[in-house]
Amino acid sequence: MASIFSKIVAGDIPCYKVAEDDRHFAFLDINPVASGHVLVIPKREVDYIFDLSDSEYSDLQLFAKRVAEAMKKAIPCKRIGVAVMGLEVPHAHIHLVPINSESDMNFFRDHLTLDPKEMSDIAASIAGAFN
Amino acid sequence: MASIFSKIVAGDIPCYKVAEDDRHFAFLDINPVASGHVLVIPKREVDYIFDLSDSEYSDLQLFAKRVAEAMKKAIPCKRIGVAVMGLEVPHAHIHLVPINSESDMNFFRDHLTLDPKEMSDIAASIAGAFN
Repeated sequence: MASIFSKIVAGDIPCYKVAEDDRHFAFLDINPVASGHVLVIPKREVDYIFDLSDSEYSDLQLFAKRVAEAMKKAIPCKRIGVAVMGLEVPHAHIHLVPINSESDMNFFRDHLTLDPKEMSDIAASIAGAFN
Repeated sequence: MASIFSKIVAGDIPCYKVAEDDRHFAFLDINPVASGHVLVIPKREVDYIFDLSDSEYSDLQLFAKRVAEAMKKAIPCKRIGVAVMGLEVPHAHIHLVPINSESDMNFFRDHLTLDPKEMSDIAASIAGAFN
């Protein structure tokens, strides 16, 4: 069965997309820990990120770097933090989070709820900065 | 002034080393969030990880992948989690953490204190699995 992320890539589940190429996809986390929290995934459905081949892993990380650079331009923050945990959805994903302090990376506090207009504006702003 | 991590690489500050090549270095975090928590750094002192060039970034990530593979062999865990925050030490570093649940990646709970013998054994075990 396709993962929830594969359904997002296929367009069967809606998302706030920020970037895409032939093998990678990036979209807003629907339960952000900070405004502008993005998930970056390989389109190929692999559970554990370190099971990607070296070239797949390297290409995914370089795509994530481009997304992080766009996020830094689009969202006021000190830097973009990175996390990979991956025990909840069996499709490898990199969290990119705009942070001003390390506590902005606390995945174990209450997450934000942003309204659809805010989410849409943030996604458009990151997508516009992505090249 | 050299960062605390550059002093570790130079051997001016002791560490529990797990892996090294000409441009990268990996050692145990002295305040681990989980047993076997490793820091991976580029030897070149760069504050923000996304300021590395694409090739430096890709090489660092592939070195971290090899370290993560060694950790997975050496330490009983479901997988290796990844985090980059970097607001505390101005020298880019990737946290690699053996996890059995996402809460093992909670950097905001009390960290562990392991005795030197445990730290030394863990480092040796990861170093032995690194190739």
